[in-house]
Amino acid sequence: MKSWKENIRRIDPYVPGEQPDLEDMIKLNTNENPYPPAPGIIKAMKEFDFDKLRLYPDPTASMLTDSLAKYYHVDKEQVFVGVGSDDVLAMAFLTFFNSKKPILFPDITYSFYEVWANLYKIPYERPQLDDNFKINKEDYYKKNGGVVIANPNAPTGIYENLEFIEEILLHNQNSVVIVDEAYIDFGGESAVRFVEKYENLLVVQTFSKSRSMAGMRIGFAIGHKDLIKALNDVKYSYNSYTMNQVSLCFGVPAIEDDIYFKETLKRIIDTRERTKVELKNLGFSFPDSMTNFIFATHPQIKAIDIFRALREKNIFVRHFNLSKIDNYLRISIGTDEEMDKFISALKEILC
Amino acid sequence: MKSWKENIRRIDPYVPGEQPDLEDMIKLNTNENPYPPAPGIIKAMKEFDFDKLRLYPDPTASMLTDSLAKYYHVDKEQVFVGVGSDDVLAMAFLTFFNSKKPILFPDITYSFYEVWANLYKIPYERPQLDDNFKINKEDYYKKNGGVVIANPNAPTGIYENLEFIEEILLHNQNSVVIVDEAYIDFGGESAVRFVEKYENLLVVQTFSKSRSMAGMRIGFAIGHKDLIKALNDVKYSYNSYTMNQVSLCFGVPAIEDDIYFKETLKRIIDTRERTKVELKNLGFSFPDSMTNFIFATHPQIKAIDIFRALREKNIFVRHFNLSKIDNYLRISIGTDEEMDKFISALKEILC
Repeated sequence: MKSWKENIRRIDPYVPGEQPDLEDMIKLNTNENPYPPAPGIIKAMKEFDFDKLRLYPDPTASMLTDSLAKYYHVDKEQVFVGVGSDDVLAMAFLTFFNSKKPILFPDITYSFYEVWANLYKIPYERPQLDDNFKINKEDYYKKNGGVVIANPNAPTGIYENLEFIEEILLHNQNSVVIVDEAYIDFGGESAVRFVEKYENLLVVQTFSKSRSMAGMRIGFAIGHKDLIKALNDVKYSYNSYTMNQVSLCFGVPAIEDDIYFKETLKRIIDTRERTKVELKNLGFSFPDSMTNFIFATHPQIKAIDIFRALREKNIFVRHFNLSKIDNYLRISIGTDEEMDKFISALKEILC
Repeated sequence: MKSWKENIRRIDPYVPGEQPDLEDMIKLNTNENPYPPAPGIIKAMKEFDFDKLRLYPDPTASMLTDSLAKYYHVDKEQVFVGVGSDDVLAMAFLTFFNSKKPILFPDITYSFYEVWANLYKIPYERPQLDDNFKINKEDYYKKNGGVVIANPNAPTGIYENLEFIEEILLHNQNSVVIVDEAYIDFGGESAVRFVEKYENLLVVQTFSKSRSMAGMRIGFAIGHKDLIKALNDVKYSYNSYTMNQVSLCFGVPAIEDDIYFKETLKRIIDTRERTKVELKNLGFSFPDSMTNFIFATHPQIKAIDIFRALREKNIFVRHFNLSKIDNYLRISIGTDEEMDKFISALKEILC
């Protein structure tokens, strides 16, 4: 091996869900929103001053942090934005997890947590979920260098209420606790209400799911201003301008159009509940989901076989080839029409 | 101090040039391009499918890497793109500089190199520029964990020819050599031609200066496919989707409109050469610049005083409060009209 190659950081990267681009496909594999983003974005683009592209964006992204602060009733000094919640979370790992003690997150959760811990050489432990895929909160009551909880958890879809989250906070006042709420808008209650009480709490959310903007890469964190200041110091030491002019311009109308936001959420939740009934009728079982996906298994037919059979019908769902969950499929909630086609396809596959 | 605060990564962040937004200001402080980006971008936006924003972007950014590969006559496996060249460079530091030996870069250069080395705890040494702000190439002939050379260098503006760069490559075949060419299009010759010959060479460029797109945050690296693969592995371990749908869509016409690109470059170069003459007539001296800025000092009046006086006239240039260069101003090249006003303002200040 060439000697310069010896100094390359070697990692097993996260593998994102495939992004096929086929006609007539039904894409239920990356938890994207089936509805377009807020119509105000089209108006914002029509008014966009293209000449502005030659100038660096506002490094503080204040248009967007102001809008988020207003919406979530916090100060703008309590809001941090990044290139998707992945960027926000990765920066939070780098900023806050510098202890020699391990950070804690469940063995089954968003698989990027382990990837970031490896990338930044952060020690970690992964307490096991119980047999029903539930988090044992007591597992997080020991000394640690930080705690990361996805609520609702992914890919299980299970939501824990705020008393559960507060128990974890009460037992962890000496380390930063990240609550990753990528899916919270689909029926859960946000821990943002605790950021005044627990100054070591960082709540992370994204525009990618509930706000139909996976393509724009906007995520954000809300927490005590000292946490946000520390995150910004690291951000300014990495890339002063992460949010481009268009992201700033499109992000604001997505926050401001709350009527459209709540309408599309309601449609997705209604479709999810209807899909749960259909899946149960077909013999599937799944943890009750409070997200825009259902994590389902079938007693007779292997998940991988269903996955492949669906694929042949141009229907894409997600299968994780990981122990404990390799007999499950993560099925994103699409439109009613897409879910009807999906259920029909399942009926054909199962009989 | 609260114990969770002990584990926060502490750094002195890079301080970006201010982004004032005043009417009638002349902004010559962040090396932005005075001309708008390629007109094809407006067309691309008009045809942009907003519904696509709900979908994740292509994680491989292939639209953009294909376009760059074609333009620079390399394979698409030799191209990496990121959120500005800052993102690309930061990821390259994290990916390639994992030796215990120090990396080397000049004491006066793009100040982010030191910030990234501190952020990632990479040991470094900063060989001194000579009294004329020139790099002594022999300083880079010793054992090291990597080499980073900005060519042209910033904020001096000095360009070294390709024989000079090749000498450094010849003496550094055991570590990754990054050549940061943020300003190369303003008259220099790119080291991209060496990427076949030296597989440890990574050439980094940006859309922010010559392509008038600081606001879109697009940077790229070209190198051997093994280097690019290693960068992508780290990128996929950090944030699978760094380039949003709009960046991908706007980036391509910026590359394809080569006539517009060369026209604006020529205008900036002509204005720069004219500005050099004017500055000399006013008594300024400066290293000969091959960039879109001039790094100038005046024998009688302190740089900081000129900086402040210009600011009062709503003219913004950059002053670095750093040893050796605190009596210099970095003046970006604006339009002819802007530079005329700038020169008139200098005349008033100097007399």
